[in-house]
Amino acid sequence: MTALREHLEAVPLIDHHVHGCWLTSGDRTRFENALNEANTEPLAAYDSAFDTQLGFAVRAHCSPLLGLPRHADADVYWRRRGEVAEPDLARLFLSAAGASDWLVDTGFADGVSDLGEMSTLMAGEVHEVVRLESVAEQAAAAPGDYASAFDELLSRQTRDAVATKSILAYRGGFIGDLSDPSPAEVAQAATRWRDAGGVHLTDRVLLRFGLHRALRLSKPLQFHVGFGDRDCDLHTANPVHLLDFLRVSGDTPVMLLHCYPYEREAGYLAQAFNNVYLDGGLAINHLGARSGAFIERLLEMAPFRKILYSSDGFGPAELHYLGARLWRSGMATVMQQFVDAGEWSHPDAVRVADLIAHGNARRVYELT
Amino acid sequence: MTALREHLEAVPLIDHHVHGCWLTSGDRTRFENALNEANTEPLAAYDSAFDTQLGFAVRAHCSPLLGLPRHADADVYWRRRGEVAEPDLARLFLSAAGASDWLVDTGFADGVSDLGEMSTLMAGEVHEVVRLESVAEQAAAAPGDYASAFDELLSRQTRDAVATKSILAYRGGFIGDLSDPSPAEVAQAATRWRDAGGVHLTDRVLLRFGLHRALRLSKPLQFHVGFGDRDCDLHTANPVHLLDFLRVSGDTPVMLLHCYPYEREAGYLAQAFNNVYLDGGLAINHLGARSGAFIERLLEMAPFRKILYSSDGFGPAELHYLGARLWRSGMATVMQQFVDAGEWSHPDAVRVADLIAHGNARRVYELT
Amino acid sequence: MTALREHLEAVPLIDHHVHGCWLTSGDRTRFENALNEANTEPLAAYDSAFDTQLGFAVRAHCSPLLGLPRHADADVYWRRRGEVAEPDLARLFLSAAGASDWLVDTGFADGVSDLGEMSTLMAGEVHEVVRLESVAEQAAAAPGDYASAFDELLSRQTRDAVATKSILAYRGGFIGDLSDPSPAEVAQAATRWRDAGGVHLTDRVLLRFGLHRALRLSKPLQFHVGFGDRDCDLHTANPVHLLDFLRVSGDTPVMLLHCYPYEREAGYLAQAFNNVYLDGGLAINHLGARSGAFIERLLEMAPFRKILYSSDGFGPAELHYLGARLWRSGMATVMQQFVDAGEWSHPDAVRVADLIAHGNARRVYELT
Repeated sequence: MTALREHLEAVPLIDHHVHGCWLTSGDRTRFENALNEANTEPLAAYDSAFDTQLGFAVRAHCSPLLGLPRHADADVYWRRRGEVAEPDLARLFLSAAGASDWLVDTGFADGVSDLGEMSTLMAGEVHEVVRLESVAEQAAAAPGDYASAFDELLSRQTRDAVATKSILAYRGGFIGDLSDPSPAEVAQAATRWRDAGGVHLTDRVLLRFGLHRALRLSKPLQFHVGFGDRDCDLHTANPVHLLDFLRVSGDTPVMLLHCYPYEREAGYLAQAFNNVYLDGGLAINHLGARSGAFIERLLEMAPFRKILYSSDGFGPAELHYLGARLWRSGMATVMQQFVDAGEWSHPDAVRVADLIAHGNARRVYELT
Repeated sequence: MTALREHLEAVPLIDHHVHGCWLTSGDRTRFENALNEANTEPLAAYDSAFDTQLGFAVRAHCSPLLGLPRHADADVYWRRRGEVAEPDLARLFLSAAGASDWLVDTGFADGVSDLGEMSTLMAGEVHEVVRLESVAEQAAAAPGDYASAFDELLSRQTRDAVATKSILAYRGGFIGDLSDPSPAEVAQAATRWRDAGGVHLTDRVLLRFGLHRALRLSKPLQFHVGFGDRDCDLHTANPVHLLDFLRVSGDTPVMLLHCYPYEREAGYLAQAFNNVYLDGGLAINHLGARSGAFIERLLEMAPFRKILYSSDGFGPAELHYLGARLWRSGMATVMQQFVDAGEWSHPDAVRVADLIAHGNARRVYELT
Repeated sequence: MTALREHLEAVPLIDHHVHGCWLTSGDRTRFENALNEANTEPLAAYDSAFDTQLGFAVRAHCSPLLGLPRHADADVYWRRRGEVAEPDLARLFLSAAGASDWLVDTGFADGVSDLGEMSTLMAGEVHEVVRLESVAEQAAAAPGDYASAFDELLSRQTRDAVATKSILAYRGGFIGDLSDPSPAEVAQAATRWRDAGGVHLTDRVLLRFGLHRALRLSKPLQFHVGFGDRDCDLHTANPVHLLDFLRVSGDTPVMLLHCYPYEREAGYLAQAFNNVYLDGGLAINHLGARSGAFIERLLEMAPFRKILYSSDGFGPAELHYLGARLWRSGMATVMQQFVDAGEWSHPDAVRVADLIAHGNARRVYELT
């Protein structure tokens, strides 16, 4: 093991975009579906989420933490996992991730731990990320003027939060006008939406309104970008289509999350705008043995002070751990190659590792 | 040679998308043009298709089968090739591919062997893939109602076929409405097309009609995706634009062929839909020394039970062989890296190799 | 050092797309901004262009030429650089590039050397590349009929030039009609533009007119493609959108420059059209330690007689040198891998290196 790899094994992480983990036990179907991000339906009988890069990575890296040999069979893994209570699994895998801070998106939390539970579970500080579309849906249900209700809710909910998050990628995507709508447009759109029930926001005017309100907060604004489930049209989740929005986004940090397969486009935007950042969360887990090649591409056009770490773990705590596991080994391999080729110095590699592991996140989110 | 490479050298393949090969001799222009997929015009005088990755791969891998040293000069290769009768070349290269089954697209067969000839030549079973646009063009020429004629032809022609194939990518691409048209729309469009001559189908309504008829058959539906000749607008052959169609495609297997440079998008769709599959045929040949890097990307988001092998060979039988040759060595290199890095176990690598080589194809096409 | 690497270290280059370099000293802000291509604003206080792949490459490769150790600290590098007069820096780095010919885009030359100065500085022949949009802006200011003025200016300015260049990517992008407009359309558009001041051409009709006039010249027409600054919408600078234009471009060589992250699409077009060529200038510099991976992708679908070398250096002469430095080592690494894997022969690798280094450029630009 090289000194660089040793450093990366130990460096504390700030997981700047993550969700809750399971606290109650479930069946194998729940587990396998949680290993497939894109499919919104039950997996076919002839398929198994264990037969994927993520499945192989779970068997390679999570088995030893459960006392199993590396690459334990899927059935063996599943059986052994069932012998441990879900909260104990959570404690085991979360602490093994080596994160000092977790920035938790609370916008979608069906079946997973809430902030309080996570504080207890997680070996580290827990911070909240507020989802804009959830705020909008609450504002639709609130009495009185929509814009005022939204403002009041957003202000209250973000008082102790570190960031906001938008899933515009799932609600129509990035293509088209993303300018700040006029108050009259907002009022009209809100009436229309409330009349239609006021659930599951897809109204473009109100989505735009939410984004521009988030910009005013000055707290970092996270965007789901690229790879997700099939409710998201991958084509319209390409961050190049955020260009006009970024041009008016001022100094508010804009965080491009996940980014696969548009990580090169995201890196370009991180170079083009002082306030744009990116990570490779979610994708790194699903790429497993191929995550190193993805991490390499994250290290192309993006300035090194603009790249962050996240796992985007949701559900099985294996994911919260694996994100860290794969990032640590992928980064070590990639940067060691740069050093061995004489392109980077060893101290530079250590410094860049620290920036991405926690330095950039601490600065941008103003964590103490 | 590692045990994994030995396994890959010997594993029988199902080439699930291929065309006929030449049986009559031709000049060097014919040969060189057949090594360039994208250009629809004669190559310029200052160019040579031997000076490409595919050309270098032919010289590296096909030379020894003709008794020449690896990397024989282009002129030497061409001369030696001319000393062997075309059917003998076909027998030589086809048997060297090590395929047990060939699924042959008979929709475009100018100058190449037909199914009967291929049965004789090919060291393996031959199965037919019926091209939907050819069926449509026959239906246009048939008497009576277009839809009935199409249904009758499709039913008859696919009785013994294993799949259908669409070249929608060449007939307007994937962008836009791909829903099932109404009978009235179909009738109107058919009249319009027949009045205009009824050749070379580009009418969107009738293309959509054909796709949805193919879905009803339940046999796998193959799509040309990405890289092809310049009649195809690469941009509109990106499989992300099939999203809405895939959402209504039910259980009929949809096979995304070739996929370059959209293999990562195709892999995402293979994860997102139980019925979506992909391969890297055609591209692997044209990438030559770079095909390993492409194979790596095929092994990213797609579940391992959703990836298949094909050569897409057409014309010179070198292509039917090279597809297998490059796939075998590329897969061995890529998977050995996964194993050496401790990310995959050796038995898993063997199992995934078997799935992609033939297991998945045998299951999806219900071959015995 | 292998024989292949030795060959690549010494092979003379034709830098077929480059700009002037600084001759007057400036402050550190000017220097750091020149290391960031995409951002059009001053870098944020918390950022440093030294903390990028390009910054690391400058410290790795340019330091030794200034008598510093490899990877010298950013502050040390900046101090040492300041001790050398800018023209001496230019002479130092330009001669170290090992280029026999420089094809200089004179269309944007704020603060950098003009052709005459470059002739003095550069250890090699200097040739001019005329920017079409500059010609148009001069034609707008000229008396009389716009089309005649444009023709007259273009004819005069290209008499001794080797090529034209279009920055259509920055003036609306490639999407949409790029056909040759009628004389009446041109006259109308010119009147409209002149009435509006006649500066900064973005009128689509006149942009199209310029392109088709350039085609008639038969001299190579260079296009900025992909990666550039954020005035360019990356999405519309994807060369796939040039398809219809290329279909009518006849025999005039069309040179796709830079191409990141669309180098695979550009390679496909270079295979599809006899008259299409590509390079990886600009991108190679900004990719630093990752430039080898980019060079690999340039060597995919494009025939080897269709790939060229350029640095796209502008401003600090480090960029004119680094382009060559990174290309030489990246090509050596990539091609040595092909040779070691038995996919290419050593003589073929040398021959392809020579084609890309200077052979193709000499042929296409008809340099003596």
